Formats: sequence, structure tokens, C-alpha cells
Amino acid sequence: MASGSESGTGRVTLTDVARLAGVSRSAASFALNGRTDLRISEETVARVRDAAEELGYSPNTTAKTLRTGRSGTVALVSDFIGTTSFANSMVRGALQALRDADALLYTVETEGDRAAEARVLQNLLNRDVDGFIYASMFTRRVEVPAVIERAPVVLLNCVSPDDSVPAVVPDERAAGEAAAAALLNAGHRDRIWFVGTFQAGVTGGAAWHGWSPLALTERLAGIRTALHAAGVELAGTLPIERDWDIANGRASVARLLASSTPSALICVNDAVAVGAYQALQDAGLHVPGDVSVVGFDGSPLTEAVVPTLTSLALPHEELGRVAARMLLEDPSAPRTERIPMPLVAGASIAAPAGIR
Amino acid sequence: MASGSESGTGRVTLTDVARLAGVSRSAASFALNGRTDLRISEETVARVRDAAEELGYSPNTTAKTLRTGRSGTVALVSDFIGTTSFANSMVRGALQALRDADALLYTVETEGDRAAEARVLQNLLNRDVDGFIYASMFTRRVEVPAVIERAPVVLLNCVSPDDSVPAVVPDERAAGEAAAAALLNAGHRDRIWFVGTFQAGVTGGAAWHGWSPLALTERLAGIRTALHAAGVELAGTLPIERDWDIANGRASVARLLASSTPSALICVNDAVAVGAYQALQDAGLHVPGDVSVVGFDGSPLTEAVVPTLTSLALPHEELGRVAARMLLEDPSAPRTERIPMPLVAGASIAAPAGIR
Repeated sequence: MASGSESGTGRVTLTDVARLAGVSRSAASFALNGRTDLRISEETVARVRDAAEELGYSPNTTAKTLRTGRSGTVALVSDFIGTTSFANSMVRGALQALRDADALLYTVETEGDRAAEARVLQNLLNRDVDGFIYASMFTRRVEVPAVIERAPVVLLNCVSPDDSVPAVVPDERAAGEAAAAALLNAGHRDRIWFVGTFQAGVTGGAAWHGWSPLALTERLAGIRTALHAAGVELAGTLPIERDWDIANGRASVARLLASSTPSALICVNDAVAVGAYQALQDAGLHVPGDVSVVGFDGSPLTEAVVPTLTSLALPHEELGRVAARMLLEDPSAPRTERIPMPLVAGASIAAPAGIR
Repeated sequence: MASGSESGTGRVTLTDVARLAGVSRSAASFALNGRTDLRISEETVARVRDAAEELGYSPNTTAKTLRTGRSGTVALVSDFIGTTSFANSMVRGALQALRDADALLYTVETEGDRAAEARVLQNLLNRDVDGFIYASMFTRRVEVPAVIERAPVVLLNCVSPDDSVPAVVPDERAAGEAAAAALLNAGHRDRIWFVGTFQAGVTGGAAWHGWSPLALTERLAGIRTALHAAGVELAGTLPIERDWDIANGRASVARLLASSTPSALICVNDAVAVGAYQALQDAGLHVPGDVSVVGFDGSPLTEAVVPTLTSLALPHEELGRVAARMLLEDPSAPRTERIPMPLVAGASIAAPAGIR
């Protein structure tokens, strides 16, 4: 494996170096970047450097950072700008940070077309952009195009297969824990359902391009962790048909209500939660008196329903701001920043009703 | 007035030329641009050219169009990117059109700060951008910074004081007419109220920067025109406190319901309409059985309420696409393109209930 690359792209990654040196990826990064503020022995530093040399590891981002920027331009390359509209606050956050540094932003949308992406990335490189923010409109793992690794890159709302590229993502797992904690604190102990898994082999509708959202697995993992710590288990998970939208949320919850009355519903996003409200209303059940509901995203939908929906908010603007700052400052140390998702308190959680 | 400028900016406009020549602004534009596909007499052309010479009129955009583009880059300069999130589909539309032309887009957000705007515009000009799309997140009149008139400019979702700069805006007036027509077709003849005017001297909350939205005046004008043609008049207009949001819509309609029951509510946007739903529900009134409701924007909120809200949709993506195409093709002929706002049919309009 000495000459191989874990990610299969032919590029030797920091993970390969760390493995050969027998240290953590973070320690390898710190060693190669000469960080003196961390306790890493001289011996470890030497071992990491030997491993890097043996593998021919070339840290793509250490040589040229924006501190020595040449063109004063950064490119934000994303799959979709308009699909999930409120994710655009990421662009806003990035623009704010870049304006402070008098840097200009190119905005590029690929719509998931890899050929178009390659062409536009080459065009940007020909213009000597100082760095790339490579963004996804929902949190997922991406194959970072090799061509942009010629310049500093920070991933926004996505991560690379081996976490070797600096990234900024929402802390989805902690948000899952917070959603469960909100219900536990209100006294819920059983009949807590999760709404919004996919059926086997399905990963959303056409807009999803077969991409699997990390939000689903990480939110669900956080929920299970927090419940389990309290000696509670999910009653079950309810799949939705295709997209996480209002109609599918309503249909999914209606199927549950035909046979069972939940104590609380944790919905994978706000749109599914709005659908849940509608199904509950159709069944003559009240939120939160009969059933508590919590969502994720913190979208404008939370204010559109009565009672207002409690939700864990995607920190889009902060994500964009942190990614841009990371790029401006020094993206050479691979790390994944997880930005907290604040709880936006609505009026959709109450003490559980008695068993019916 | 021969040397004066109507807009007071010191720049001689096409309107000034047209007035001196005694022709319409369109005719003046066509004459100066040598259009042969329109019936303009040689005598008129000569008169317009004499007037232009006398006034020292210099058409800012005729000399260099993107057909002879040098850098393959365009800049979209807007006041706010993230505030009204779903307006970002304008950026998406522009990106699609530019990608077809292999042009790259700089995205710039000024947050309404004129000093920051001037700095970034100069920076962009130094980079030889081929043209500017100058955008507002809500439809309004803007003072176009003189510096960007050195390159071709198309206004997106805004218009210049004298309409001398090419612009693409939603057809707000026609949308107002369509909203009124939907109610008239359902049989409404009286007790039709408009919700969402501002009280005297107030033009929205802090986010509005004192900008007066054209959407309000034009939507209302269209509503009055269509009603008047059917021999019907608005029962009245209901002011809202500051912003066009759910809470203010709810409060405004609650004040009306304390003294009167409407037959239909035309709400200035979807958020105000959602607030109207809530106030009606609080009063024990049903939509649409007791009161019909129609909104504007076609936002995701329309699907979040029961019954779904009928709304006139802002064609954001189309606005962006048309603006970019206009810039790419030939922005030299000043014209204002009004893009239709399609009616998104919900279930919020029905025949009027009897007088209570």
C-alpha cells in the first residue's frame, strides 16, 4: 500500500502518510505544517516527514495560500444554486468574508454535470483564481475534481471521501442529539418515530442525482445516540417516497396514523414536518397536545404553521463565512469544521399525552 | 432645458434627446441605433441625431457589446443575495444563460452600501468585465452607479429613474390584474380588501433601507384597474406595521375582522397571506368557504398552508435568464422587458359566502 492511495484517485493523501507513519491524520497534518502549538514529539515529526517523502506526498495547498494571493479572486463552485433556495445564504456568508478581504467571487453552478464542471474549472484556473470553495447544496460526500487541487480548496457543506480536504459542514449529529434531547426533556419516553428515511435502493427523486445525503444518516445517528443514553429507543423509522417534501411527509405520517398514534415525530426536515402537521390535522390530532413534532433546517416554513415548528437550523450563512475565512487564512491543515445547528424554538413540543 | 438632465444626475439621457426631438423614447432609441426593421422616417432619424448632438448625448452601451467581449466575464452586482432567499433563482437563471455562452459570472453583494459598491465596481472594471447585471432583490427604482455605465449594463428586477437603461422586471401590474380577475371569476363583487400597504411615511422595516417597492404600487394599480373594469371597487386597503411578514399580516387582518367580515383578501405577498390565514382561523373563519385569499410571490409558503394558497409567482429564474441573454446579445437598445408572473393555482379561492 506504500504507493497506493486510499481514495483510488491515484493521488497520495494525508491519510496514506498518517497510516504509514502510524499516527493520526491530525498529527500528520500538524507535523507537516510545522505547528509548534501542539505537543508532537520530534521523533513523530521525523517519522511523518519520512513517510511523506517515501510516498511522494505533495500537500496541494501548503505552497500557495491566499496570504500570497495573486489575483484577488476566489471561485465558489456548486452543484445547484437555486434548488434549495435558502441554502444560498452560504453564498452570502462567503461574500461577506471575502469583501472584508477585498477579494472577488466567481459563482459557478454545474448542475451536477461533470463535463461542464471540468470545462469551467479549467477556465477558472486559467484566470489564476487564488482558491476554490467547492460547495454542495445538501450535505454529502463528493469526489473533488483533481484539477482544482492545483489551487487551495475548501469544501462547503460537503466532505471528501477520505476527509483529506478541508471542509465546513453543519454539525448534523449534534443536531440529531439536540432534537432527541428536546423531546426527552419534555417527558417523551416511547412512541417516538423518525420520519424521512428512504426505502432500500432509493435515494430521493430526480433532483438528488443518486446522491446520498449525510444529513439523514448523521441526524438519525445523533437521535439514536441521545435516546439510547436515556434508555429510550425509537419506535421506528418511516420511509418517504422520493423527496423530502410536504406531500410525501403527509402521506408517510398518514400511513402510520392508520394503525398507531405516536407520542412524538422527529422529521428529517421542515417540509416533511409540515406534511406531518397536515396528516395529524386530517386525523383530528393536535400539535403539540396530542403529538409533539420537531424538524430540521430552520426554514421559513417553521413560521408558516400553527403552532410554530421547533427546528434545528442549518447555519448556512455561518458555513459560507467560515469556509471563506478558512480559505483566506490557511487551508493547508486538513480539518473538518462542524458548525453548530441552533435550536429554533417553536411551540410544537409539549409533554406527552396519555396512551390512547 | 436643452442642456439639463431629467434625472438630475448631470448625465444627458435618451429621454432628454427624445423630448428635444419631439419623438417617443423608443423611436429615439431606434433612430440612434440604426434599426431598419421599424418604420421611422429619414426625417425623424435626422431630427433625433441633431438633438443627440446638440445635447451631447453619448449612448453608454452602443460602443461595446458582449458580441466583441474581451474577457468572457460578467458581473452580477446586487444589493442583497441572502435576504429574500428564493430570489436567488435569479442568479441561477443568469448562470444558465451565461454557461451556454461560456461566460463566467462574478457575484457581488453590496448590502446597499454605496461606498463599498463603488470600490468593488472599480475593481471589476479594472478586470475588464464585459458587462454588468445590476440586480435588486425586490423590484424598485435604482440610481445606477455612473461608473458601471462604462460597460454594457442590464438591470435585473429594478428600473432606472428615466428607464434609459435596459431592464428586466416582473409584470407586476398584469399580476395584480390576474389576482383580481381570479376573484371576479369566482363571483366576488364586494368586500374585497387589499392587505399590505404602508402607513404614510413608512416604507418597511430596517431591511428595506427606505426603498419603496414597485411591487406594491404596481400590483395595487393592476388590481384596481381590473376591478374597475368590472364595475367593482376595493372595500379598502389594510396597512401593515413594517415588513411584509406573517406576524404583521396576521395582526393587520385581525384588526379588520374585529369590525367586518371580508369576502376576499388580496395579500401583497405570500407571507402576509399566511398571516391572513392565521387571523381567519383565530376568528373561526374558513378559507375559502368563508373568505377567499390570494397572494403574490409563488413562494414555498403556498404549499405549507391548508388549503394551498393561490398566488401570482415571481418568475425569478426567467428574470435572470432574460437579463443575461439581453446582456449577451445587445443591450444597446433601452427597453424594459416585463416577464409574466404565472398564476399558481391553490385551493384558496371559492365563490363568496352570503353576507353574515
